[in-house]
This record gives sequence, C-alpha cells and structure tokens, in this order.
Amino acid sequence: MSQSSERFDVVVVGAGIIGLSAAYHLKEEEPNLRILVLDRNAAPAQGDTSKSVAGVRNTFTSEVNRLLASSSIDFYRHVQSEIGFDVSLEMIGYLWLMTDSQSKRFESIESGMRQQGVRLRVIDGQQLAELLPDLVLQPKSDQSKVMHLSEVCQGVQGLDCGTVAPESVAKFYAEQYVKLGGQFQFGTEVKRIHLEAKDDLGLPGEPYVWQDPIFSGVETNHGLIKADTIVIATGARTPILLDPLGFDCFVKAKKRQVFQLRGTALTRLLNAKGFNEQNTLPLTILPKGGVYFRPVRGEKSFWVGAADDLGRPFAFENEPMPEESYFTYNMYPVLSEYFPCFQSIRPVNSWAGFYDINSVDSTPIVDKISNCILATGMSGSGIMKADSVGRIVAAVYQNKSEATLYGNRRIAPSRIGLVNRSVGKEEFVL
Amino acid sequence: MSQSSERFDVVVVGAGIIGLSAAYHLKEEEPNLRILVLDRNAAPAQGDTSKSVAGVRNTFTSEVNRLLASSSIDFYRHVQSEIGFDVSLEMIGYLWLMTDSQSKRFESIESGMRQQGVRLRVIDGQQLAELLPDLVLQPKSDQSKVMHLSEVCQGVQGLDCGTVAPESVAKFYAEQYVKLGGQFQFGTEVKRIHLEAKDDLGLPGEPYVWQDPIFSGVETNHGLIKADTIVIATGARTPILLDPLGFDCFVKAKKRQVFQLRGTALTRLLNAKGFNEQNTLPLTILPKGGVYFRPVRGEKSFWVGAADDLGRPFAFENEPMPEESYFTYNMYPVLSEYFPCFQSIRPVNSWAGFYDINSVDSTPIVDKISNCILATGMSGSGIMKADSVGRIVAAVYQNKSEATLYGNRRIAPSRIGLVNRSVGKEEFVL
Repeated sequence: MSQSSERFDVVVVGAGIIGLSAAYHLKEEEPNLRILVLDRNAAPAQGDTSKSVAGVRNTFTSEVNRLLASSSIDFYRHVQSEIGFDVSLEMIGYLWLMTDSQSKRFESIESGMRQQGVRLRVIDGQQLAELLPDLVLQPKSDQSKVMHLSEVCQGVQGLDCGTVAPESVAKFYAEQYVKLGGQFQFGTEVKRIHLEAKDDLGLPGEPYVWQDPIFSGVETNHGLIKADTIVIATGARTPILLDPLGFDCFVKAKKRQVFQLRGTALTRLLNAKGFNEQNTLPLTILPKGGVYFRPVRGEKSFWVGAADDLGRPFAFENEPMPEESYFTYNMYPVLSEYFPCFQSIRPVNSWAGFYDINSVDSTPIVDKISNCILATGMSGSGIMKADSVGRIVAAVYQNKSEATLYGNRRIAPSRIGLVNRSVGKEEFVL
Repeated sequence: MSQSSERFDVVVVGAGIIGLSAAYHLKEEEPNLRILVLDRNAAPAQGDTSKSVAGVRNTFTSEVNRLLASSSIDFYRHVQSEIGFDVSLEMIGYLWLMTDSQSKRFESIESGMRQQGVRLRVIDGQQLAELLPDLVLQPKSDQSKVMHLSEVCQGVQGLDCGTVAPESVAKFYAEQYVKLGGQFQFGTEVKRIHLEAKDDLGLPGEPYVWQDPIFSGVETNHGLIKADTIVIATGARTPILLDPLGFDCFVKAKKRQVFQLRGTALTRLLNAKGFNEQNTLPLTILPKGGVYFRPVRGEKSFWVGAADDLGRPFAFENEPMPEESYFTYNMYPVLSEYFPCFQSIRPVNSWAGFYDINSVDSTPIVDKISNCILATGMSGSGIMKADSVGRIVAAVYQNKSEATLYGNRRIAPSRIGLVNRSVGKEEFVL
C-alpha cells in the first residue's frame, strides 16, 4: 500500500467534488501527467460532498459566482443530456418566500440580476396562496408572535435552479479520470503537508526565513507521498492542514445539518403544481432563520436545512453528528408555522457535514502559492460551482492568465486568487 | 472582586495599546459612559504590546495604512512635545537595505509614495559603504553562497519613521482614561463572550436561528460582567474568543520573537552617524528573510526580529517562549553575513509575543456586529496605528460615518470594516 518511493507530478488531496473535478480537468488538459488523488475515505465523494443538500442555482449578484455556477450547471446538463450520464439534474427552481422588507431589498438587486440573464419569476402573495394551500402567509399563533414571524408578501422563483445528485457528478468525474489513466489511493489520510527548503540542507527547522520554501509532498497514514505539485481540495479541513505551515486559506469550518422529513401530510406539498414541469415544490427558502427545504420525490420526503450565521461555532469535528435539538428548536418552529403540514412530523433521518466558509465574500478561492494549488472557500455552494472550479485549477496549473469554462465562458483565475480578488459583491446569500 | 451584579455601558476586553486607545477616546468623546477595561494581566499593556519592537513608520503604499500611521505618529509627537508626556518617540528612521531586484520593485512604488507625502532618502551602495563601514554589501563566504545572499545595491531611508516606547504610550492613555473616570479591572480573564437572543426565552441553545443575537456580556474568572456594548481588543487571542460564536474576525495568531544583542563590537554601529540627529542606526531591514534590527541605545544593544511568512505556524500559545534555535538558524546567519560585527554575539535576552495577522490586506479591522465592536488585524503594526484605531472605535460606537483622526484627518470607518473594505493595496510590507 505504501507509495513512499513513488513521485507524482500532481497529488490532489481530497476526492470530494472539488478534488475530482480538478483531477479530471487536469488530466484531460495534460494527459501525460501522473496524477494521484488521495482521500481518507474508501471511495470518492464520501465526505462533505455526500452530505450536501445539493441545490444548484445561478441566482447570485456577484458576477463571478453567477459565472461559476451557470457554467457548472450547464456542464451537468450536458453530461446528463448529451453524454447520457444521469446526474439527476432537475431544474425544479428555487423559491424564496419574502417578507415586505426582504422584498424591498430584493427589488434593489432584481433588475441587475435580470440584466445579467438570471431568469426570475415574481409571485405575489395571492398567487402564492393559490399555488401553495399549505402555506400560511401570516402565522398567527402565540409562538409565531414570540418568534416575530412576518407575513410572506411574495415569492421569487429562480428558474434556472434546481437539484442534482452530487455522488453521480462525482462518479462521472471519477470514471472519466480513471479512463484517462488517473490514479486514486483511498483510505489514505493526509496528516501533514510537507514544506521544505528548495535547497534543503538537512538541518533541523528548515525552511529557514532566508530559504525559499517549496511543498514537497504529503505525509499520510501510508507514508510520505512526494509530488511536484500539490492540489489542496480538502474543504473544511483545509485550515487544519495549512495553519501549521503559516498559509492562510481564509476559510473556517461550519457544521451543517440536514434532516429528512416524511409523512402523508406532506404529499400535497411534495406534488405542488405550477412551479416546474416536475410538478413538485422548488427548493424553498423560508423568510426566517435561513431555514430551507427541498423535495426528494424518490424518497417521498423533504430535506430540511438552515443557513445559520452568528451563534453557531466555527469548529471542525472529524465525525460530525446531527443534533435533533437543532431541528426541534431552530428549524421546526419556522417550518411548522409557515407550513403547518409539517406539524408533529419528526425526522426519519439526519446527517451533518461541514462547509468551508469564506466569510469575506462567500466565493471560491483558487490560488497557487509556490507549487501548491489551493481550491477552497466553497461556502456551501461548492457542488454548483465544482466544474468551473476544477477547470480553473487546471488553468492555474498551466499558468494560464485565462481559464475557459464550459460554454466557452472565460475568467481570469486571478479574480478568485487570495490577494487582489475581484469577485463582485454577493448580496443574495442563502 | 466580582462585578457580576454591575452593568456597564461599554466593556473593553484587552488593556493592550488598542484597548487603551479605544477606551480613552471613547471616554473622551462620551464622558458619561460607564466604561470598564478588562485584562488578564495585572496592569495595562503587559501582553503583546510589551513584546513589540515598537518601530513606527509612515512608509506604506496603502492610503489607509499611511493615514492611520501618520496620524498616530503625529499624535505621539504631540503627546511628547506639547503635552510633555515622554513616550520616547525618536525619529531615527527606517533603513531598508535592498538588492537589485528589490530596488527595481521599490522604483515602481517610489513616486507614488513621495506624491503622497512620504519622505524618503535613497542612498546608493557607495554612500552606504561610507556611512556603514560595518556593512558588507556583498557577502562572499561559503555560507552566504549557500544562502543565496545578494549584493546590497542601495538603502532607502524612511525619514518620518522611528521608535517609540509602547508602554509609555499605554501609560498615557491609561492615566488619561482614569482621570476621565474610566475603570479598569485587572487579573480578569475573559473566558467567553456571551451571545444571547434579544428576546431571550430562557431555553437551552439560544440564540436560535430565528432569533436576533445580541452580545450581552463577558464571562470571566471573576464572574459574568454585563455590558450594552463590548469592544474586542484582544489581539491574537481574538479568534479564540470569536470562533465559538461563529464570528469570523479574519485574523490568525503568529508568534514573533525578539532577541537582544549586546557587545563592544556593536558600538560603532550603534552610534552610526549621518542618518539622524540621534546619531544612531535607523531601524534596519536586511534584504533577506525579513530580518530586521533596531538600536536601543539606553541598553547599549540591538533588538533583532524577523518577519517570517510561509513555514511558521499560525497558532496561539498562552505563554509563548522564544526559541534560541530560531535566532541561531534564522536570524543570525543573515545578520552576521551582512554585518560581521554581530559574529559570535549571542542573545543576552529574548522574548516572544503574537501578531494578529490579517493576511488579506495587512490592515487593521474595525467593525461593529450587532452591539460588539471589533478592533483587530494589526498585523504587526498596531503600536504605530493605535491612536487612529482608538478614534475609529469611538466613531463606530457613535455610529459616525466619518472618524476624525489626529491632525484633522478624516476616514470613513467602513473603509476598514469587515465587508466591502476599501483599504488600498499594501506593497511595502516589512
């Protein structure tokens, strides 16, 4: 199992969706490269990729986020429709339920989004009530007053949004990568990234301040693996690997929990008409607490999540567990007040994973420092941007000043680099 | 000792130079405020403020950094000359020794700096050799070849730069603050910042995602202290306090070590003429490894430091210790090759502290989130910007859209806020 005597052109750390896309696009661009993808799990995409709620959307106000997402979604559609590899892409839409003040805020960014080609449908309160008899526009219970729940005034549906199966996208990349001759090594946990002096003297404590540092390999539970270039695609684990080297990746780990809800009371909502050709509810965002839920028709259930902010720690755990109390006290009250059909329904399943949050601008980071390429900061929207991010990693490897994304879109990788970023302002954060 | 029953208008966490400046300016602006400054040490400025090398300079390319530093240095001069409180401000200059490639890089930013009023003196190699007979422009030893030490081609002296005594500046602020009625509580370590729901229900796990969070106080080794506003001036300790709240402060802790060198071989260098009216060497930056040293004439010695980058961990320790091997392998080789008068001289004293590094733009961060004001990210140049940062904290408290700094300079606090920062590019990092 030990690969310690081998040397690779590129070692990709992490076989999540980002590492897989990067490895595939690298190998496609440079077929002769000896690439090894490492992962601590036993198969591709078994970490946080598999924990995702897997929504995809192009409704961003930042030009870069829109570009990365639109291009990736188009590629997944291409994979599904033209290549014929099913990735369960369903454009069921995203539906934001908005209070009066949220609607006003949305108005200020709406025309800009439309001008940039984001297709939106605005649904007024009356229409919403007709389309969704399960929705209570203005909750009136005592509890809803304690919670300061405001009236839903309108809905905004992102039309080029939907859901995908991340494990299928991952499988596509992994299979293609292997077909091109790419290698995997699973069950291999990277303990440490090796930073050495370019002209190593074999003395203790190198690299010294007067030496040029270089990333020489990765220390794993199966020994040292050397590489000319190291790609870090480790998601929320990234600061744990890079902080010891004094390499600031600008991301922090944040736990995210998903709860699966099932019940006959949800049947009508699951089969809501008037939103999409699938005749189901879009991925729906409630107007309080960042609580959202998506239909999973194959399972006859909904997945519920919450994009919490202040109050939940930045901290990483190796084996995160969902907390039922988190559902009970945080999600359930909001969910059941606006959609009483969820009342008394308890989770039948749940899981937890980690986001790699970039609090600066909620936009991915791809940069090369010495011979290390960093791809991180997906901030919860990594699945929907993974194809673009992988192509940018390949372009950075090739020192290209411009990356070509799917659909012949172009972007300078430096725009999502660590310094002098130019990503535009993101005002539509889920 | 317990203050748990008391409630303050403002609690300032940290009696370092930033917390002291903030507390003083807050109290001066709002004399009726009940302010309490907390610190785990027994007196003001006993933490990282006291570990500083205490250089002050205005030689920044970022407009904001220049503004913050120039204004603070002018204030310290005012304190010393006009108020008559000695803060040991000595404008001995900063001297950058530059290789050919560093000189070329400097050329590209020189005119911009001069246009913005930064006074610089360029000294060519021959002049340097005359002024500094102890300097070897081109080290020729075998070791210097291994180290790839390049020839020093020129020196650039920042004229409005020098050194100050941080503990004296701190004393000034502390005394003035107490005169105005401000309170201290020492020996008080903040264990946790309390984040609660605005409309607390007394249930476990609050604040929930549907509640508005508010900072209600600080938990200390002497009990809970409540406050309407909390000012976080905790330097490198900041992420330890804020990460558990999911509050990203964008700084990481980096250890910095200072070594004191003394010896008769250094007398001539200590009394170098031709640079300043003090007839001493400026704070001098060597062209390799970020190694620098400053004269401390009262101690007949030099303090040596290094601004290391990649290769030294981001990590915090409560009681950091200097490592003699760090001096031996990192600083000494560079120092002794360019200035052989340091040969065989071993440190007589040493200490270590922490920088609160903002890797994004090496510029301070002041922002208000809910009722918490954050002042951090000094990145190793906090002493020289402390007065301005304190005034900006006061302006942020007062919700002013513009802060007035010493010398009637003005800046919008939002420029150094957490989001949508606008600080300009810093290309002259020490």
